[in-house]
Amino acid sequence: MTDLSAVKTALKSQEIETPSWGYGNSGTRFKVFAQPGVPRDPFEKLDDAAQVHAATGVAPLVSLHIPWDAVDDYAELAAHAKERGLRLGAINANTFQEDDYKLGSVTHPDPKVRRKAVDHLLECVDIMDATGSRDLKLWFADGTNYPGQDDITARQERLAEALSEVYARLGEDQRMVLEYKLFEPAFYTTDVPDWGTSYAHCLKLGPRAKVVVDTGHHAPGTNIEFIVAFLLREGRLGAFDFNSRFYADDDLMVGSADPFQLFRILHEVAKNGGFEKEQEVAFMLDQCHNIEAKIPAVIRSVMNVQEATAKALLVDLDALRAAQAAGDVLGANAVLMDAYNTDVRPLLREVREEQGLDPDPLAAYAATGWQDHIVATRVGGTQAGWGA
Amino acid sequence: MTDLSAVKTALKSQEIETPSWGYGNSGTRFKVFAQPGVPRDPFEKLDDAAQVHAATGVAPLVSLHIPWDAVDDYAELAAHAKERGLRLGAINANTFQEDDYKLGSVTHPDPKVRRKAVDHLLECVDIMDATGSRDLKLWFADGTNYPGQDDITARQERLAEALSEVYARLGEDQRMVLEYKLFEPAFYTTDVPDWGTSYAHCLKLGPRAKVVVDTGHHAPGTNIEFIVAFLLREGRLGAFDFNSRFYADDDLMVGSADPFQLFRILHEVAKNGGFEKEQEVAFMLDQCHNIEAKIPAVIRSVMNVQEATAKALLVDLDALRAAQAAGDVLGANAVLMDAYNTDVRPLLREVREEQGLDPDPLAAYAATGWQDHIVATRVGGTQAGWGA
Amino acid sequence: MTDLSAVKTALKSQEIETPSWGYGNSGTRFKVFAQPGVPRDPFEKLDDAAQVHAATGVAPLVSLHIPWDAVDDYAELAAHAKERGLRLGAINANTFQEDDYKLGSVTHPDPKVRRKAVDHLLECVDIMDATGSRDLKLWFADGTNYPGQDDITARQERLAEALSEVYARLGEDQRMVLEYKLFEPAFYTTDVPDWGTSYAHCLKLGPRAKVVVDTGHHAPGTNIEFIVAFLLREGRLGAFDFNSRFYADDDLMVGSADPFQLFRILHEVAKNGGFEKEQEVAFMLDQCHNIEAKIPAVIRSVMNVQEATAKALLVDLDALRAAQAAGDVLGANAVLMDAYNTDVRPLLREVREEQGLDPDPLAAYAATGWQDHIVATRVGGTQAGWGA
Amino acid sequence: MTDLSAVKTALKSQEIETPSWGYGNSGTRFKVFAQPGVPRDPFEKLDDAAQVHAATGVAPLVSLHIPWDAVDDYAELAAHAKERGLRLGAINANTFQEDDYKLGSVTHPDPKVRRKAVDHLLECVDIMDATGSRDLKLWFADGTNYPGQDDITARQERLAEALSEVYARLGEDQRMVLEYKLFEPAFYTTDVPDWGTSYAHCLKLGPRAKVVVDTGHHAPGTNIEFIVAFLLREGRLGAFDFNSRFYADDDLMVGSADPFQLFRILHEVAKNGGFEKEQEVAFMLDQCHNIEAKIPAVIRSVMNVQEATAKALLVDLDALRAAQAAGDVLGANAVLMDAYNTDVRPLLREVREEQGLDPDPLAAYAATGWQDHIVATRVGGTQAGWGA
Repeated sequence: MTDLSAVKTALKSQEIETPSWGYGNSGTRFKVFAQPGVPRDPFEKLDDAAQVHAATGVAPLVSLHIPWDAVDDYAELAAHAKERGLRLGAINANTFQEDDYKLGSVTHPDPKVRRKAVDHLLECVDIMDATGSRDLKLWFADGTNYPGQDDITARQERLAEALSEVYARLGEDQRMVLEYKLFEPAFYTTDVPDWGTSYAHCLKLGPRAKVVVDTGHHAPGTNIEFIVAFLLREGRLGAFDFNSRFYADDDLMVGSADPFQLFRILHEVAKNGGFEKEQEVAFMLDQCHNIEAKIPAVIRSVMNVQEATAKALLVDLDALRAAQAAGDVLGANAVLMDAYNTDVRPLLREVREEQGLDPDPLAAYAATGWQDHIVATRVGGTQAGWGA
Repeated sequence: MTDLSAVKTALKSQEIETPSWGYGNSGTRFKVFAQPGVPRDPFEKLDDAAQVHAATGVAPLVSLHIPWDAVDDYAELAAHAKERGLRLGAINANTFQEDDYKLGSVTHPDPKVRRKAVDHLLECVDIMDATGSRDLKLWFADGTNYPGQDDITARQERLAEALSEVYARLGEDQRMVLEYKLFEPAFYTTDVPDWGTSYAHCLKLGPRAKVVVDTGHHAPGTNIEFIVAFLLREGRLGAFDFNSRFYADDDLMVGSADPFQLFRILHEVAKNGGFEKEQEVAFMLDQCHNIEAKIPAVIRSVMNVQEATAKALLVDLDALRAAQAAGDVLGANAVLMDAYNTDVRPLLREVREEQGLDPDPLAAYAATGWQDHIVATRVGGTQAGWGA
Repeated sequence: MTDLSAVKTALKSQEIETPSWGYGNSGTRFKVFAQPGVPRDPFEKLDDAAQVHAATGVAPLVSLHIPWDAVDDYAELAAHAKERGLRLGAINANTFQEDDYKLGSVTHPDPKVRRKAVDHLLECVDIMDATGSRDLKLWFADGTNYPGQDDITARQERLAEALSEVYARLGEDQRMVLEYKLFEPAFYTTDVPDWGTSYAHCLKLGPRAKVVVDTGHHAPGTNIEFIVAFLLREGRLGAFDFNSRFYADDDLMVGSADPFQLFRILHEVAKNGGFEKEQEVAFMLDQCHNIEAKIPAVIRSVMNVQEATAKALLVDLDALRAAQAAGDVLGANAVLMDAYNTDVRPLLREVREEQGLDPDPLAAYAATGWQDHIVATRVGGTQAGWGA
Repeated sequence: MTDLSAVKTALKSQEIETPSWGYGNSGTRFKVFAQPGVPRDPFEKLDDAAQVHAATGVAPLVSLHIPWDAVDDYAELAAHAKERGLRLGAINANTFQEDDYKLGSVTHPDPKVRRKAVDHLLECVDIMDATGSRDLKLWFADGTNYPGQDDITARQERLAEALSEVYARLGEDQRMVLEYKLFEPAFYTTDVPDWGTSYAHCLKLGPRAKVVVDTGHHAPGTNIEFIVAFLLREGRLGAFDFNSRFYADDDLMVGSADPFQLFRILHEVAKNGGFEKEQEVAFMLDQCHNIEAKIPAVIRSVMNVQEATAKALLVDLDALRAAQAAGDVLGANAVLMDAYNTDVRPLLREVREEQGLDPDPLAAYAATGWQDHIVATRVGGTQAGWGA
């Protein structure tokens, strides 16, 4: 039997990292729909993230994206966060929104462009020093659109060289986490298309290089929880980028497209010790919800991660292992489904009340009047969005 | 044996329609990379399209996109086209780039938004009257991002109602061609996700409603040539939107990702009479090539369609049918592959020379100096792109 | 608010049809794993199906597969069913397991093979007359493995001709339900690859021709509930073949791979009147569970359909429609998710108790001792399996 | 410019390995269609393989599958091969066709089953000693069908342990090549689903463990040539299993579904030194062509590999690299396409004539009368097929 008080303790200590860009405008190549009240700068993004943390109690970390969140004084930004009960999380480098990067950044054929890109990555480590962030999060838009456009292995050489220089710059308590992505914006090849590529580079770099699993970055039919389990076994799971997809990298709210998959992933995390602090797995959200209200959508995603976590923690591992050892296919599956089919919302309401929170985070947020406040006061200036 | 002179005649009379938006800037949600010399208005787009036609001899038609190509005087635009040996082709309606359309256009829950969208479609028919365009081309970005967001069947009702009103407005020689798309920008459902949906609506509308097959709008594994053959059999293939994809709707140059598929599609067209003028199948390109030179990329796509067409026309149909009737799997496949494996570039060079064209369209374009000219002279103003 | 007693009534009157072949051995191309106690003939299959119905109370119908379930006297088989509280459901024709069908059955290039196949279909209608079955269920393995192997449109002609002859033979209360499948066993094209093809043929045949949606027969990323909603709107949804897939046509237990998808499908059924008897939608299982215990796996699938149905019936449609009309994306999604996140197992236990059933069907079946009985007594003979 | 005589030399020295099981009957889970004249034992399979080699001149190696090709005296089998100008190639282990393996072989929860499976692998190394084969080729059908069925990481432990024991048993000149496969026959997880998993195990085993790339074993949208290039860069590409797929693991003739992909793969091989003998990349076919004539289908596959190889060797690498270095997207792609669009069949006819072969391998085979001979003489006995 599962120990319910241990489950509650785990749920209370969970830390989910929300992305600064989740508070700004976003869209598709067809249209970005602006929303009233959206932040104009990183400080306002933190203000919104603080609302999410206030409502849920489990979202104290905020990822930054440089240069979208570039400020003159990062210590000031960190202080702004601290005042609101937040900490600055991963620093996401961005080497895809300047004209120089049309054919790549760290893998570009031109060494001058590569130099520029690596310098940006090194600058991000400087920022980590200032913000106290642990993780340099690397996703490269690099790749090619056409067969023959560039040399696949030459690009791997350039990638390895860039990563190596940046890894050497990391402080002792800092990590590099390397994301992979099947496609988009490059359509023929990306330079880190799958976990194997990221893993192979991490192995060569050293123990502080780890893999990021973005749940939207796989080919159809890929068993993501297998990858999660495998990386945990190897000690190379650095972070999640949670979001949902029906087709491609749709970046929808976490758990909205396939809640059972999210549960299965978190079951592997639970079973393989991934919730233990010393594993240092970062549970980040990375969503670009284009048409629904910004802050409530992040709250909903946080709640969905909590619910899936609760279900994962409720799996009766002893019963599961007994059925597995006995080759009881239906019995083992039933143990897992029992946890999944449980309605954990009452449990989470209890957990929140024990933490002094409103049991209903969305209602709690609505009651704050924050949404009206920001719509009324964030007038003028330029709304934050991808690219700003 | 295939009659080579008939093949040449067919190749000379082929008409490929290029998209006005293929001459402007485009990109992904991550970045639009601008190119020097890109047109600032529809007249300049036609100037570029004229270069493609001059180089290839088979691209006399240009599709417009409203409001991207809105002008005060469409007769003037048509005259501009005519002076350059061009004709204005399909009018593409656009109901996806205004804030009102965040939750849909003709399928929006709010009747006011639907009215606005239908009025735009009717306006497009007015434009057709002015330009002499035959086809109203409809692609709807409408759909939903989340389960439950809106009612699937209610949206079908609204769609049917809108199409019906617009169809009634068409002149006798005008057609409505309805595109389908699996996903993007809507991620959970689109309102016309597959050919079956488009076909079912067309059936109810009448004989001048036909289906558009965009080669990038299918789920992985879909056999597109089956759809083409089926629609030709039913007399409901209205047009192609040719482009290439490796993963999603990548909108790359035609024939660049899977030239064998393009050949198979055109083989079904050839075998089922789709190249005959009275079938009125429009052979359009719809590509958004983001990183390569604009005009040469369109020329390359036109050439790729020509080469695949030539191969399709070279298939020895008598031999093919004999092998098929005999149940000779390897033999029938070999007949098809013989045509595909033929290098048709010498044949096309001959065809071009017989038409008084340079045998090498890309070299011919390079020799015109047009690229330098537009880079030098198209200074100032706002470059055309998606949304402008 | 949802009316709970109406939900219970609906759940009690649900009828799920189980497949005779689900009680026999099955496997992949690599291996069929035999199980002890598996039936040797259709009578024993019915005995097993009766256990499923006894345990669940909602599985009174059994689909047959001809010739796998061919018997000398179908009236005797129907009587055997009736004695066990069962009725014979759809008759599934099989035109794929004889050497003649290597290159197709009703679409074969050779008219003699087509004649043989059509005669088999007509024979199946004779059997329907004898068994009182309403539905002739047609799935054709027909298709091609290689481009050029046979003519796509010629095969459509042959298909139309065959269907037309068989449709004309149907009695007034009989229906033809036509299944589609993306691929397998044909790898290049199938002759009915998608719902659009099936729908187009049904339209031409008449009102008693309807489409079968097998949940495992779609390309990755296909939104199945859209198809279900569309067909219900058109009055052309004939039947479901429920099963689960992670990749291809895996034929796993219903609801085991994506329970949320099953819920979304049944939500469309509920919302569009598909549970009403006069709609005549058949809720069939079509699974080939290869490695788990046969009867318990079918019980589990039935329970999974029940649970998804219960959740679908619990959706607060008034609240949903209000949120949809208001364009409240998060609110509308939340209404749907509220129902999905509900643990309906207590409700179903109640329903069963009110029907005089054991609240736990799997425990009830285990308690019967039937499994030991069949293992002990079904000795000798040839176990039923695909092909036998 | 490409050196044509070097291309010819490379083509003449190419060695393609054909699979013994490609000469026997095969099929899908729905039906195995038997063909007259199919071999009854491994000796007859070698006789057929000798025909392929005689016709093409480049197929001197034959892979065996144990126990399908088990014989009492492997030295006799090797001698039989040698007399026909053949050599015995990879030994394929088979741990998926016994009842014990229902839930896995080397990853089975029961140590007794694992022991049995490992013993079989060790026996395969014994056979390699007898046949002089270099490669132990491992593909495991191991996996699970349902979430929770077994423990993903525990299965990895068992896999690692088994591989380690077998690797230790290899002789100095022997290798282990480990295949991966996304799905089938396991539907939820396989235990080696992707190249990353295989690669990670190989790294730990040692330098003589390498990855097998089966072109049919990937998720839709996977860029296979990227994997090939990456593995070549790492020195870990052991072998290819060539075949074609449209959807899943269709095992069709090589190059029949996407000849451009085959070319791109072989372009990466050529560019990264993979055709050099010291790289020891094995070029195997692994196809199960179900409906077409056996020997001609293998000949056709061999020819398709030759043609794609010829095109890959014709790529003007200097021009390609210059265009890549200049960031000339269209130019670089054009260099590649120039080679692909070349009709290399005349070149291959020349090559064959210079080798003293008939320029048309299929006509040469037809002229031998072998097909009639085997149909007439291979009467009685049991035809070889999967499982026999």
